[in-house]
Amino acid sequence: MFSFELLAKDGEARAGKLVTHHGTIETPSFVPVGTKGAVRAVSAGDLRKAGTKVIIINSYHLHLRPGEDFIERMGGLHRFIGWEGPLMTDSGGFQIFSLGAAKEHGVGKIAPIFPEEKNRGGHFSSKRGKPLVRVDEKGVEFVSYLDGSTHRFTPERVMDIERKLGADIILVLDECTSPLHDYYYTRAAMERTHRWALRALETFRLTSDNTQAILGIVQGGAYRDLREESSQLISAQDFDGYAIGGSLGRSKNEMHRVLEWTIPLLPEDKPRHLLGVGEIEDIFQIVKRGIDLFDCVLPTKIAHTGTFFVKKTDRFRIHILNAQFKDDPRPIEARCRCYTCRNYSRAYLRHLFMAREILGMRLASIHNLYFLESLMHRIRSAIKETRLAELEGEWLSPKDAGPYP
Amino acid sequence: MFSFELLAKDGEARAGKLVTHHGTIETPSFVPVGTKGAVRAVSAGDLRKAGTKVIIINSYHLHLRPGEDFIERMGGLHRFIGWEGPLMTDSGGFQIFSLGAAKEHGVGKIAPIFPEEKNRGGHFSSKRGKPLVRVDEKGVEFVSYLDGSTHRFTPERVMDIERKLGADIILVLDECTSPLHDYYYTRAAMERTHRWALRALETFRLTSDNTQAILGIVQGGAYRDLREESSQLISAQDFDGYAIGGSLGRSKNEMHRVLEWTIPLLPEDKPRHLLGVGEIEDIFQIVKRGIDLFDCVLPTKIAHTGTFFVKKTDRFRIHILNAQFKDDPRPIEARCRCYTCRNYSRAYLRHLFMAREILGMRLASIHNLYFLESLMHRIRSAIKETRLAELEGEWLSPKDAGPYP
Repeated sequence: MFSFELLAKDGEARAGKLVTHHGTIETPSFVPVGTKGAVRAVSAGDLRKAGTKVIIINSYHLHLRPGEDFIERMGGLHRFIGWEGPLMTDSGGFQIFSLGAAKEHGVGKIAPIFPEEKNRGGHFSSKRGKPLVRVDEKGVEFVSYLDGSTHRFTPERVMDIERKLGADIILVLDECTSPLHDYYYTRAAMERTHRWALRALETFRLTSDNTQAILGIVQGGAYRDLREESSQLISAQDFDGYAIGGSLGRSKNEMHRVLEWTIPLLPEDKPRHLLGVGEIEDIFQIVKRGIDLFDCVLPTKIAHTGTFFVKKTDRFRIHILNAQFKDDPRPIEARCRCYTCRNYSRAYLRHLFMAREILGMRLASIHNLYFLESLMHRIRSAIKETRLAELEGEWLSPKDAGPYP
Repeated sequence: MFSFELLAKDGEARAGKLVTHHGTIETPSFVPVGTKGAVRAVSAGDLRKAGTKVIIINSYHLHLRPGEDFIERMGGLHRFIGWEGPLMTDSGGFQIFSLGAAKEHGVGKIAPIFPEEKNRGGHFSSKRGKPLVRVDEKGVEFVSYLDGSTHRFTPERVMDIERKLGADIILVLDECTSPLHDYYYTRAAMERTHRWALRALETFRLTSDNTQAILGIVQGGAYRDLREESSQLISAQDFDGYAIGGSLGRSKNEMHRVLEWTIPLLPEDKPRHLLGVGEIEDIFQIVKRGIDLFDCVLPTKIAHTGTFFVKKTDRFRIHILNAQFKDDPRPIEARCRCYTCRNYSRAYLRHLFMAREILGMRLASIHNLYFLESLMHRIRSAIKETRLAELEGEWLSPKDAGPYP
């Protein structure tokens, strides 16, 4: 059971409705990441109250521990993690990058042109180390970070893993390349990814019980001809939707160009997911280019160290440990209706992080998720009322914006 | 505003109702500990859902950070920590022990007779180290564990701190002695504690705005004549209730004897608080000797490492990391109605602790608090129906007990 309905357009931005076996998602929608089967520091109840409609879990991590067969015996992933809403699983393709080339090259999905950008974190940097991955035509071999055991993933095997996990929306195995891979490697990996996609789709069609939807993944790095070729080839296959994966170049601008090359070649009537992007400053950029879904660890990752989203600051963040918040009796955001802002002051939240009380991490995750969900709610309304540009102006030029809505 | 009403007795056990400025507490009641202004891993909302009616916070820790003047400016402790229910603060007396003699002697509030008991944890052991405390007639000097600065607490100063914090029930400064202190030291410390109590009470009466109630503290270690003398002297003062503090001897049996010497000498019409005791196996023992309130870090402390309360096991605990729970699809307790048991399996909870997801700690705290609160609810009902002995038999001889109620 899966359908996608386009409700409104504002330029290339789309407002839609995605119906899955476990409920409906209004798009564009942010998808929080629960890498190992839990969105960092929050429960299913917290997610529901934050307005979260769909989460994505990493098949690779669950395969290593506790294992897909075990989760199937436990009644499937929804029941195991206590989340009854729409659920996605990724394929392990990102780990081919994060445990492979990202370590070898010391980069993230966007490689910085200027070394100082590394310090900006986000998509830019990764710790250098020995790669734990070997790719060949059949698939990929991982060395487990848990115990050094080796695990082979093939496109067919990943379909089997994701079928056992039982998420509503699943992804095919792909190779996510590095921004530092050259044209020839990126092309070879893309062509292999295409062959994998066909193998995965065939397996999926033979074994599916029609409760799951499957997304194909467009690759091709930051090379225009590769992205165009990949978009055409993957969108010619009967996937239920399309994801855009892999390297997004050497800057945010290159990322925007990748979207501009790719999206016009994808079918209008199916959903489009951008993998692993979701800083606040990215959201307007990707939504107005036609993205319907995007996932990112950011809101819960930065929550862990006391960083809270707010509207009117540089990069939409404050770090609660800064001394300026010591005496601050105000909530993080004056008009925010999240549990954290309704109950706690900046001074208390700072105290919790100073005292290393883990309640602070949860309260930060709750706020950051709610903040993003309520931004997405506004974006959806703005698209329906064709005033997305106005909303963007209000957010991206805070100086010129009116009072907090 | 403070009153205590005795509703029923079953032997020496009492069911009562304590009315404070921020709400009513049915007694006997367990008081969770929020040392630094947060009960470990849970929010005020979690506490309310667990059935918690009252919590206790450590004045000493809040004095060091963020400071009582600061909290007063923030509108008081209730508002600062987001807890609108009844609230207690302790006096720093326990830290005189925990940062002083407990370190010097390497013991807890009960010193083991047999070295192997040390491994049982709980009240028995403490890490040996250099004491950070010096006591004299005026008061006590602490060396801050945060930055090495020195802080003087006097009985008068502690009243000032606790008045600024603004809890509903506050405690006088006392010296909590060690089970390894001899008779002469214990007597001298007790007599000093008595003088401190009178000084504190005088300060309290002069500065109180009648929103706070004050408890005196009985000391005297495990010496009968000292406990009797202390009970008589302290209960002759017009405190709103009485706490039993200090060393509780060298075994649980000695602790029970301390209660039997002390409680009959306390006034029937005022509440009695036992400081820092609350293992499941202690609860029936202290309630049937006439205790109305008791506080303990245990349920949230053991939650931090994956230990959950259950009814029918040794010491009422299971450690979720044990391999036997790996494939266990059942909730922690089949009929428990806590958020954790209604939503998650033992297998998933084990997975969270294996994966070091902090959600696990919160779910364990929620269960352990709910478990204790629901035991206390049953105990209160049993007292009212004069069948506490029956309930005790069911809990303390699980083999002979009927089906889970």
